[in-house]
Amino acid sequence: MAQKNFVELTRTNDKMPLVGFGCWKVDQKDAEETIYNAIKVGYRLIDGACDYGNEVEVGRGIRKAIADGIVKREEIFVTTKLWNTYHNKANVRPAFDKQLADLGLDYVDLYLIHFPIPLQHVEHDVCYPPGWVHPTKTSGILLEASPMQDCWREMEKIAEAGLARNIGISNFNVQLILDLLTYAKIKPAVLQIELHPYLQQKRLVEWVQSQGIAVTAYSSFGPASFAQLTDDGRNAKPLLDHEVIQAIAKKHDKTTAQVLLRWSVERNVAVIPKSMHVERMTTNRDLFSWSLGADDIKDITALEMGLRFNNPDSYGMALPLFA
Amino acid sequence: MAQKNFVELTRTNDKMPLVGFGCWKVDQKDAEETIYNAIKVGYRLIDGACDYGNEVEVGRGIRKAIADGIVKREEIFVTTKLWNTYHNKANVRPAFDKQLADLGLDYVDLYLIHFPIPLQHVEHDVCYPPGWVHPTKTSGILLEASPMQDCWREMEKIAEAGLARNIGISNFNVQLILDLLTYAKIKPAVLQIELHPYLQQKRLVEWVQSQGIAVTAYSSFGPASFAQLTDDGRNAKPLLDHEVIQAIAKKHDKTTAQVLLRWSVERNVAVIPKSMHVERMTTNRDLFSWSLGADDIKDITALEMGLRFNNPDSYGMALPLFA
Repeated sequence: MAQKNFVELTRTNDKMPLVGFGCWKVDQKDAEETIYNAIKVGYRLIDGACDYGNEVEVGRGIRKAIADGIVKREEIFVTTKLWNTYHNKANVRPAFDKQLADLGLDYVDLYLIHFPIPLQHVEHDVCYPPGWVHPTKTSGILLEASPMQDCWREMEKIAEAGLARNIGISNFNVQLILDLLTYAKIKPAVLQIELHPYLQQKRLVEWVQSQGIAVTAYSSFGPASFAQLTDDGRNAKPLLDHEVIQAIAKKHDKTTAQVLLRWSVERNVAVIPKSMHVERMTTNRDLFSWSLGADDIKDITALEMGLRFNNPDSYGMALPLFA
Repeated sequence: MAQKNFVELTRTNDKMPLVGFGCWKVDQKDAEETIYNAIKVGYRLIDGACDYGNEVEVGRGIRKAIADGIVKREEIFVTTKLWNTYHNKANVRPAFDKQLADLGLDYVDLYLIHFPIPLQHVEHDVCYPPGWVHPTKTSGILLEASPMQDCWREMEKIAEAGLARNIGISNFNVQLILDLLTYAKIKPAVLQIELHPYLQQKRLVEWVQSQGIAVTAYSSFGPASFAQLTDDGRNAKPLLDHEVIQAIAKKHDKTTAQVLLRWSVERNVAVIPKSMHVERMTTNRDLFSWSLGADDIKDITALEMGLRFNNPDSYGMALPLFA
C-alpha cells in the first residue's frame, strides 16, 4: 500500500501534508524569496512562528505565490505559533491578530501554543518578537501566572471564529496533555515536538497518535540546527554525516536528509525541513516513492540517545521543561 | 555544619523528617505491629496511601504508639495520598474523609495527589482500594475528564479546613507543576517521586527545590521493590548488592541501604524506606552521624541510567506518564 503524503486532522478532517517547509532561522532578507521558491517546488505546508521573527516576509512569499497562480490559498496549509509571552487570556487574541495581519492572510490552517511556558507579557511596541528574556532583564526568564486552561480556551475561540482552522500544541509532554484533554472543548489537532534518531520519543508518539492527535517532528536532522546554539548541538555527531545514515542513504541512492525525513514519515509523523537551496528543497520532498527496509529501521532505532537539543535549560533559562 | 534531620515546609513551617517509614507493600496482617515498631525505634514520619490497602491497620499502629505514650500526635508526621479514582471535585473530599476515618486520626500532616492521572470513579462499596483497573474491565485504565485545577482546589479546601496541614503532589513532572503553580492558592509543599542512583532526576529536584517545594524520594533502593512486579525490576542489577554501593558501604562501615538513603538525604531529599526487620529499621534511620565523600558521590552519580521502575506503562496500562 502506498504511503499517503498527508495526515487527516481530527474535527475538521483537513489534510495536513506530511512534508512541509520550516521557517525557523530563515533570515528576514531571504524569507520572501525562500518561501516563494518552496511553494514553487511543491511545498504545500509552511511552518512559521511569531518567535522566528520573519512572519511579514513569510506572508509576502505566500501571497506572491498565490498572486502568481502557483497555488490557491486553500491548497496551502499555513501553520504558526503563539509565543510564550502571550499566554494570558487577555493577550492570546491580540497576539494572534498581529500575526495574521503580519502574514496578510484571512486565516491560518493551524495555530500552535509554541511552549507550555507562560512568560510575562511584553507589549508589541516594546519588543517584537520578544524572545525568552524579558526586556527589563539581562538574562533568564520571568514567569507569569497564566493557567494553560485559560490559554487553551482563547485558542478555542480563535478556532471557533474560523481564524485558525485547527489548533494544537508544541513541546508538551504526556502529563500536561492528559490534563489538557480533561478540559478541552476542541481537542488539539497536532502536537509538534523535537524528534530525530537521537531522540525518538517512541512512546510519546504512539500515545499521542492513539488520542487522535497528529504529530509533527521538528529538528529532524538533530544537532544540525543547534551547532551554533548549544554545547550539545556542537558536540553531538551530526546526523546528516553519520555513517549509519550514510550507509542507508547509499543503499537507496538518496541523501542522508531524505533518510532522516522518510524515517519520520513512515511513522505518520510530519516533517518540516528547512533548506535555502532549491535542489535540496526538492529532494527533501521526495519521500513517497521509496521506503526504508526493516534493517534500516533497526539500525536507526539503535541510534537513540535520549539527546534533546531544544531545551530552555540548554539556553541558560534554568527551566528543565522536559524533566 | 551538621546535617539537619528535617526539612521545613513552605506556608506552615512544619518540620518534615528527612527519614520516614514507607507503608507500601506492608501486608494488612503485619501493618499495625510494623508501624508500632517503626515509631518505637524512632520513626517520626509514616508515609501511607489509600492504594496501599492498609490504612486501617497503619492507623491502629500509630494510635497504639500514641496511647502507649511513645509519641504525642503532634510529634509524628503522617502522610497519605489521594488515589487516581477520586480526582473529580465531587470525590476528593469524600475520599479524604474515608481515609481519615480509616486512620482514626483528626488530621494528617501531608496529603498528596498520588498520580496526575484522573481515573473513572469507583464507589467505595464496589471496590476499595480500587487500584488501576476499573471493576467493569479486566485490564487497562479508564480515564475521567477531571481537570487538575479542580482537583487541586479541593485539596486546598482540605488544607484550609486544617484536616491536612500540608498538601502536595506525587509523580508530577515540571510541565504540570509549572501549570499548577499558575493557579494554586496554596502551593504544593512536597513533591514525592521515584529517585535512586539509576534515576537521579537531578534537574527536576533542583528546580522543584528552587520553587520552595520539598522533595521526597520513593524507591530509594531502586529495583528492589519491583523485582516481583515488572520486567525492568526483575532484570536490573539490584542496588542493595551493587559493587559500587557495597564498596562505599564497606569504607564507611555502613549498610548498602544506609548509603543509598544518605545519598538522598545529602541533597535534602527525604526518604521513606520500608523494612519488616527492626534491626534494619534502626540502621536505616542512622543517617546523620556520618556523610559520603566527594568520591562516593561521583561513583554514585556514574550509575545514572534514566531507569524508571514505577511507570503505568510497565504495568500494562498503555500510558507513558513520563514521556
